[in-house]
Amino acid sequence: MATTKSAPLSEATRTGSRRRVALEAARPEADAGRFATKATLADPIPVEIDAFADGHDLVAVVVAWSDDAGATWQEAPLAAAGNDRFIGAVPAAALGIVQLTFHAWIDAWSTWRRDLVARVEVDQDVTVDLQVGAALVRAAAIRATARGDVAALTAALTSLEAGGEAAVAAALAPGLDALLQRYPDRTFQTSYDRMLNVVVERERARCSAWYERFPRSTAPCPGEHGTFADLQLELPRIAAMGFDVLYLPPIHPIGREHRKGRNNAVVAGPDDAGSPWAIGSAEGGHTAIHPELGTLDDFRALRVASEAAGLELALDLAYQCAPDHPWVTEHPSWFRHRPDGTIQYAENPPKKYQDIYPIDFESEDWEELWHGLKGVVDFWVEQGVRIFRVDNPHTKAFPFWEWMIAAVRVEHPNVIFLAEAFTRPKVMARLAKLGFSQSYTYFTWRQHKVELEEYLRELTTPPSVDVMRPNFWPNTPDILTEQLQEGSRGTYVSRLVLAATASANYGIYGPAFELMESTPARPGSEEYLDSEKYEVRYRDLDAQRSLDALIAVVNRARREHPALQRDDTLHVHAIDNEHLIAYSKRSLDGTDVILVVVNLHDTWRQAGTLQLDLTALGIDSHDAAYEVHDLIGGATYTWTGSSAYVELDPAVLPAHVLHVRHPTTPRQEHPTR
Amino acid sequence: MATTKSAPLSEATRTGSRRRVALEAARPEADAGRFATKATLADPIPVEIDAFADGHDLVAVVVAWSDDAGATWQEAPLAAAGNDRFIGAVPAAALGIVQLTFHAWIDAWSTWRRDLVARVEVDQDVTVDLQVGAALVRAAAIRATARGDVAALTAALTSLEAGGEAAVAAALAPGLDALLQRYPDRTFQTSYDRMLNVVVERERARCSAWYERFPRSTAPCPGEHGTFADLQLELPRIAAMGFDVLYLPPIHPIGREHRKGRNNAVVAGPDDAGSPWAIGSAEGGHTAIHPELGTLDDFRALRVASEAAGLELALDLAYQCAPDHPWVTEHPSWFRHRPDGTIQYAENPPKKYQDIYPIDFESEDWEELWHGLKGVVDFWVEQGVRIFRVDNPHTKAFPFWEWMIAAVRVEHPNVIFLAEAFTRPKVMARLAKLGFSQSYTYFTWRQHKVELEEYLRELTTPPSVDVMRPNFWPNTPDILTEQLQEGSRGTYVSRLVLAATASANYGIYGPAFELMESTPARPGSEEYLDSEKYEVRYRDLDAQRSLDALIAVVNRARREHPALQRDDTLHVHAIDNEHLIAYSKRSLDGTDVILVVVNLHDTWRQAGTLQLDLTALGIDSHDAAYEVHDLIGGATYTWTGSSAYVELDPAVLPAHVLHVRHPTTPRQEHPTR
Repeated sequence: MATTKSAPLSEATRTGSRRRVALEAARPEADAGRFATKATLADPIPVEIDAFADGHDLVAVVVAWSDDAGATWQEAPLAAAGNDRFIGAVPAAALGIVQLTFHAWIDAWSTWRRDLVARVEVDQDVTVDLQVGAALVRAAAIRATARGDVAALTAALTSLEAGGEAAVAAALAPGLDALLQRYPDRTFQTSYDRMLNVVVERERARCSAWYERFPRSTAPCPGEHGTFADLQLELPRIAAMGFDVLYLPPIHPIGREHRKGRNNAVVAGPDDAGSPWAIGSAEGGHTAIHPELGTLDDFRALRVASEAAGLELALDLAYQCAPDHPWVTEHPSWFRHRPDGTIQYAENPPKKYQDIYPIDFESEDWEELWHGLKGVVDFWVEQGVRIFRVDNPHTKAFPFWEWMIAAVRVEHPNVIFLAEAFTRPKVMARLAKLGFSQSYTYFTWRQHKVELEEYLRELTTPPSVDVMRPNFWPNTPDILTEQLQEGSRGTYVSRLVLAATASANYGIYGPAFELMESTPARPGSEEYLDSEKYEVRYRDLDAQRSLDALIAVVNRARREHPALQRDDTLHVHAIDNEHLIAYSKRSLDGTDVILVVVNLHDTWRQAGTLQLDLTALGIDSHDAAYEVHDLIGGATYTWTGSSAYVELDPAVLPAHVLHVRHPTTPRQEHPTR
Repeated sequence: MATTKSAPLSEATRTGSRRRVALEAARPEADAGRFATKATLADPIPVEIDAFADGHDLVAVVVAWSDDAGATWQEAPLAAAGNDRFIGAVPAAALGIVQLTFHAWIDAWSTWRRDLVARVEVDQDVTVDLQVGAALVRAAAIRATARGDVAALTAALTSLEAGGEAAVAAALAPGLDALLQRYPDRTFQTSYDRMLNVVVERERARCSAWYERFPRSTAPCPGEHGTFADLQLELPRIAAMGFDVLYLPPIHPIGREHRKGRNNAVVAGPDDAGSPWAIGSAEGGHTAIHPELGTLDDFRALRVASEAAGLELALDLAYQCAPDHPWVTEHPSWFRHRPDGTIQYAENPPKKYQDIYPIDFESEDWEELWHGLKGVVDFWVEQGVRIFRVDNPHTKAFPFWEWMIAAVRVEHPNVIFLAEAFTRPKVMARLAKLGFSQSYTYFTWRQHKVELEEYLRELTTPPSVDVMRPNFWPNTPDILTEQLQEGSRGTYVSRLVLAATASANYGIYGPAFELMESTPARPGSEEYLDSEKYEVRYRDLDAQRSLDALIAVVNRARREHPALQRDDTLHVHAIDNEHLIAYSKRSLDGTDVILVVVNLHDTWRQAGTLQLDLTALGIDSHDAAYEVHDLIGGATYTWTGSSAYVELDPAVLPAHVLHVRHPTTPRQEHPTR
């Protein structure tokens, strides 16, 4: 039969013609490699991929990575995990971008070796097969670079060529296998379609406990405006609770035009302090400090003192302006103008927010604008700030965030951005993919068992877990949930334990939280009454009942237990009570295991029987006894097998945070309160 | 504050700087656009995408497509479906490739219009807002191309500029809205990252009923070798059963070297016919016809007669050679050579298949080889064959299939390839993605309710449903399942009904199936005793009990009911008996609905109560009565609401195939047998 050449082959077809291995479904990968995924310094980055060829040949798969923008590359083999999936890990050795991809090829040696074993087992004549093997060894000897390897391969070749039983033994020697793995034939190697980026951030991005505090409310006496110096005096109290990030709402001059009054009154009284989020006045804008708080030197002193107390300062990055912000006159093109010549204030029609001018990201002057906005971050980074809580990022253009965060990280890869985007799910996910280190979540409103379980599963599995680090807040200055308004102490404690243990990143808005302030601005509102957003508040922190001691215990558990410092190992366990939720977490090496059980009912004692997934707890035996020690309540229980009875009373303590001590784990003592 | 320009902006950043809309998660999309998805001529291609911007602005989304390789493009708007998802459809107007992608932009007019309504509702002063709207209308008038549209926009502009209540009425007039939608401002349009390909095939790719028949077993008397002419005489019988594809195992000369004997004996007797899959002898190879079957003219006559009987011929494409195939001497480089100079026969060590030489896809001569293999298809296409059942495609290199199928389709977009890959899930999926029109499946071994339900859900939802068209076979010449070996008539019927109704593509290997042949080669084997694969078989088709009449009824139901001609509308319904499975299918327009209930138990009568999802059945009311008419058994039942009792006895009929007659559907009569 004459062969026809009807269809000329494309260059791509030609190149790939003999690449028999397919590579599919890599992980981590966000939107087909469009976005970087996230990792933490020193945490191995788990990688996976499907690899398979036609027929029955074995395949070899490696991950290749570079952490110097492609200048140098390293490789590590992946291991078969069943169903054509291969798994492995890439080290996160430095802050910044790790590029990674995958290569795979037919492993002719391993295939031949496997087949030889099958033939020998049934006493087949392997004379010709040994010649095939010898050819593979000869080719490897030619590829080999180390002199000793060449010698070893040549020696093996001689043995194989001799034939007979000795040749079979030589062929199957483990040493020879290792040598052949070192010099594979990668002529027809397949490479994965895409280069994948992973952003490696510092540990604080993965695990942090935030405390939000309005500096202006820290004065020692009622009626005074607090200062950075006052806040500095409060640092020991905040540090004693065990937080590691101290987040300040905007510290800049507050606009006077259209200033809002107490309780969000449309017109401010002459002494009203205004909202810190209405940024900018004659006294300056985003790089200035509200004079009543202190000076830049005072701020620097606060930052140094905070760090000495184990607290990193986080600033609020709210890209919006009061009408008297200097930018309004210096850069009018950064704002949208109305046909009557006025500047467009913020709106959610028919609602008007005339104290705020939003930035116009469709400005013709966008390039100057972008650099101006980044300049704000640059300024505070120069003052030593490394964490920014970004206000409403979902109302600013996506391309700006992607550029700005990446641009900052090139120079300062240790800067962390937390996205305060209480918005629609896909917008929230997009912001995480654009580069935000952490994200506020719906946790604040997830209160029932089923919705909490579902949300925890979503956040701790792909695609979410690879790109978004949740940060759980039981309250914020904007959100006093209905549950907290009605809430007993038990509710506050259960929300605290849930936030602090289900998520490695969490925060509270204090002292409202620890003092259990629960009065809304009006019925049906989630706003606080006499909100600090619109006025200076004084509280006698010593005179009031407080959760501070309990918070300290919870935060100590987080610091002492690596299991609580990550989210990717979270596992939900079954328990037969609709008000009880149970989940566990493990450290990466599996040696630290924490099991949390929380009573979600605000008032009543609840009891139930856990049906534990022992594998998730690292317990091999269904018969061996193990101890669980309550890091909050202090009790220790001895359990056996997967069933365990628990009982939790909100009036006493609505949660167990149990350190699971395997029979094989060295016993550690945790003093109780 | 001085703005800094520390980071120069990349060209990509610059271009995208003001494109505020994000586009994500398009469907249909296979492996990030690496592969084409599948569609059928005249069936609208459903498309979906996530589209959203920062803030609260509305977005407009269109799908753009070309079916002439990008020469011309059309667009259609997508509709919001909630949660930032937009949906629509693209017509499949011609066979071949449809390219499609998506564009989106901020819909400034709709946003302004929505806000105006909100303002007017609370009697806000909208003087300036009307000026904003007038500017939008003015800009549209400038963009407008149709003279009438320019005039209408100019008139509207005059009304808006006049202000007052009349201006509001003019602004909100539906006609103006339609005009503005016609001339949107797409300056900052976002386009989806990728161009997606969809292969449009003819209807037979989506829906087909296959009958497999060994032509050599069609002789009218025992002991004779059947011919194409004999098979031609059998066409009325096969057509009467209602099949539409007649698939012939290989019709080429059978190798004599190492020929296998009856029941797969290693050595053939002198009169043994050999396996048709051991292709090639001195008499010719893949483009020759086994002399005992007839001539090429006889084949052409069979093809013409088959088509006249409503049966399309499908040939077997088995790319492998007997040792005496002409290619072995003409193209020795297409085979792998052993060090002893012999050609490598097929193996699965320690098993040897010395009657078969596999093709070496790593051949240096791969380009000549590829064209040679494609030449086989070209030859049979010239003879009018348009369907190929491909034998073991998973043992041939992936890049070859991708090139070959695409190359054939360029010239003959109506050629259908069925992949016979009974292999691992990811390999099976890959072959579908590479271009095979249909795929054999695990259905053959899925026998229990839970595994069937799970498999049906997997096959009829993304990603599978977009790339793989399943073809269900209860038996093949290689697979007489244990279930069929033990099987009662009831089992044969239930497997038939499942295959024919759960999958729009199905087939049987006959007459073994309709005659319920059930004796295995030996205990524990899935091979047939005295398999036709190794010998000529004679059967007195009239003298034996047969399922032929029942098959005809089932195939008639498939032909008359569009619901059974597609898989993407399959919906599993709950029924409280572990031996009863229930599922429904709808036609694309929703007017035809079929509900199938099958008793999976081989012997015992089973009863249960359906809990129907009425929405899936197109029934709006929970109170209205509706009729279900059994297309197999002939009975008609009147049901009300979602609960219905069914009872099925394998000794009588183990399945209902119920045509659901809505109260609103015109009544159609289906005569019973």
